Amino acid sequence: MRILVLGGDGYLGWPTAMYLSRRGHRVAVLDNFAKRRWEMELNVEPLMPIRTLHDRVKAWEEVTGLKIELFVGDLRNYGVVEGLLDGFRPEAIVHYGEQPSAPYSMIDHNRAVFTQTNNVTGTLNVLWSMKKSAPECHLVKLGTMGEYGTPNIDIEEGFIEIDYKGRRDVLPYPKQPGSFYHLSKVHDSHNIMFACRAWKLASTDLHQGVVYGIETDETRLDERLATSFHYDETFGTALNRFCVQAVVGMPLTVYGKGGQKRGFLNIRDTIQCVELAILNPAQRGDYRVFNQFTETFSVADLARLVAQQAGKVGFRVEVRHFENPRVEAEEHYYNPAHTKLLDLGLKPHVLSDVLIDRMVKRIEQFKTRIKREVILPRIKWDANAQEVEELKLMWTGN
Amino acid sequence: MRILVLGGDGYLGWPTAMYLSRRGHRVAVLDNFAKRRWEMELNVEPLMPIRTLHDRVKAWEEVTGLKIELFVGDLRNYGVVEGLLDGFRPEAIVHYGEQPSAPYSMIDHNRAVFTQTNNVTGTLNVLWSMKKSAPECHLVKLGTMGEYGTPNIDIEEGFIEIDYKGRRDVLPYPKQPGSFYHLSKVHDSHNIMFACRAWKLASTDLHQGVVYGIETDETRLDERLATSFHYDETFGTALNRFCVQAVVGMPLTVYGKGGQKRGFLNIRDTIQCVELAILNPAQRGDYRVFNQFTETFSVADLARLVAQQAGKVGFRVEVRHFENPRVEAEEHYYNPAHTKLLDLGLKPHVLSDVLIDRMVKRIEQFKTRIKREVILPRIKWDANAQEVEELKLMWTGN
Repeated sequence: MRILVLGGDGYLGWPTAMYLSRRGHRVAVLDNFAKRRWEMELNVEPLMPIRTLHDRVKAWEEVTGLKIELFVGDLRNYGVVEGLLDGFRPEAIVHYGEQPSAPYSMIDHNRAVFTQTNNVTGTLNVLWSMKKSAPECHLVKLGTMGEYGTPNIDIEEGFIEIDYKGRRDVLPYPKQPGSFYHLSKVHDSHNIMFACRAWKLASTDLHQGVVYGIETDETRLDERLATSFHYDETFGTALNRFCVQAVVGMPLTVYGKGGQKRGFLNIRDTIQCVELAILNPAQRGDYRVFNQFTETFSVADLARLVAQQAGKVGFRVEVRHFENPRVEAEEHYYNPAHTKLLDLGLKPHVLSDVLIDRMVKRIEQFKTRIKREVILPRIKWDANAQEVEELKLMWTGN
Repeated sequence: MRILVLGGDGYLGWPTAMYLSRRGHRVAVLDNFAKRRWEMELNVEPLMPIRTLHDRVKAWEEVTGLKIELFVGDLRNYGVVEGLLDGFRPEAIVHYGEQPSAPYSMIDHNRAVFTQTNNVTGTLNVLWSMKKSAPECHLVKLGTMGEYGTPNIDIEEGFIEIDYKGRRDVLPYPKQPGSFYHLSKVHDSHNIMFACRAWKLASTDLHQGVVYGIETDETRLDERLATSFHYDETFGTALNRFCVQAVVGMPLTVYGKGGQKRGFLNIRDTIQCVELAILNPAQRGDYRVFNQFTETFSVADLARLVAQQAGKVGFRVEVRHFENPRVEAEEHYYNPAHTKLLDLGLKPHVLSDVLIDRMVKRIEQFKTRIKREVILPRIKWDANAQEVEELKLMWTGN
């Protein structure tokens, strides 16, 4: 199958491209390297040195004999998107090409506006180009479980059947996102749903949980194929950050009470889920939502688990509760459905002892590269919080 | 009260500004005259000649002795918004400053992207500026009943109490908007809701129905104070367009079966509702939604009503069903709540015989200015519809 991976330079985009290439698909990646610039802005770097995308594509061919086609361009440029769809004629598009960080979107008005206009415009351009050049193509879009927020009823997969005053309908699940980034994904979801209805496009919206993990079968083939693992407050996610903190002996930073429950999944399962969506495509006119995670944990439980497992391999760490920089419920009901991907055959890699063990040891190899000063939260949601003037000045004007 | 009207040059913005000025408030208007350029693009003009905003503000002072402060600027420019909030220090902001047309947003990818980035960015800049400079200010935002679409259950005012699998919560009402314009309003609603929650801002989101009418007590004071009444396919609304068609003897263009039910209200009631929202403000941290309309009609019923009433004053017209340019249900359940504004004291001007009579006579005075060629629908929602190349070429690159 011809598969186009948007955001192919990223933490998930690059391993997804390699995996699909190895499975025999013809794969192209597009990136504009925007995230590399955001990293510069904030002076954060992935844990491992990451080659340029050009060099990784070359290394991939040396190691496997397989080609990944590389395109450089910005999704906000309609001509780029249209040209790519006309030229490559993808049968599936995997869309990771967005600003992915909630804290980044909360730094200041520039980043908030940028996050939303960047993400929404890119997705709109993909939809309009599909309408014109690839109406049969299946759009596999990365959304987030954070779109739902934490309602006091069960979370379903995208839609909910509501009985109300003697009538019934199946309606889009109400969304209560918690940052301008999460909001941008909600905007995307509404736009895609409309395009599927009005233009009979086909899309699967993967409402993904928090991804953890450092390696896939493909990144392990060669050091040059590593993916950009982040542990900083902006681009790092909870489990990944905790493992790094354990290695450098910092207390694990739990925000607030730590009762916030979230869905988590292994990076290998992200890739598996994307493949399942591609191989079992949505029909024309269909907008599907799959909740993409394998287990739920509270943040405090996750921290305790990491502390415990890291302790077993010799790292003594404590769990410390920090003032929560976000505006979110710290104790809440959380029961999200996630059966659709299991029904398609997902075999979860659950968070076992072995995994944390291996992650911590891998992280230790790069211990000298860890910047401790980018781990603690500086970016705060609250209106009364002191603004991070230093970060505000670092706006590059995307 | 110090009240800032964003989009003060528009069909609703200008009469609102005059009304509030006459009620003793200190009123400022902001506009960037973007809509005047969109009119040029599409070669459409308001029915009546409309003075520049500068001249209307002058005329207002001559006629009433009252000053309206005039600011020219673009809401997408954060510096403009922040400067205005710092300088004028509004206690209430009435936000009409958006691209208001569904058909305009469906012409091509340029207009779709423009509509969403323009509307979303402007509102984000207002929210961030309020956070910084005017956290006590009450944002009265114009949304649309079109955000809800046509669910098969009763529509509530912004939120719905859901009983689900033995649990209960009050959640944002699910939205199913039907154009990229309507989607932009849904995006705004989610953004505003979040800002009220995270930053304790106060906002009332007026989900407004289809507005009709040509005059208010203030526009009637002097010809120079007229507001920009549109009858074209892009900026005109159903009832206004029907009245103009009756006057020129064109068949009334009902889209499809005409069973589409919508909420309608008189332009005088728009102004009354905005005033009620201002005088009964939302509390800090509160995001309220009021459904702002006074009556529901099906489009076919509305056309029959206009034909009948126009017939009484001598205009013979027929109702004709056109292929529906939109993707929408033509027969559906529709029972939206609209009690909150009535509870605050709204006294509706219902669509009586007298009103259509008067509108038709007023329109007749400008009969020679009517451009028949801009009334029939050319802009189509469907992916297979022929694109309007002529309109696509007229993109000015907002």
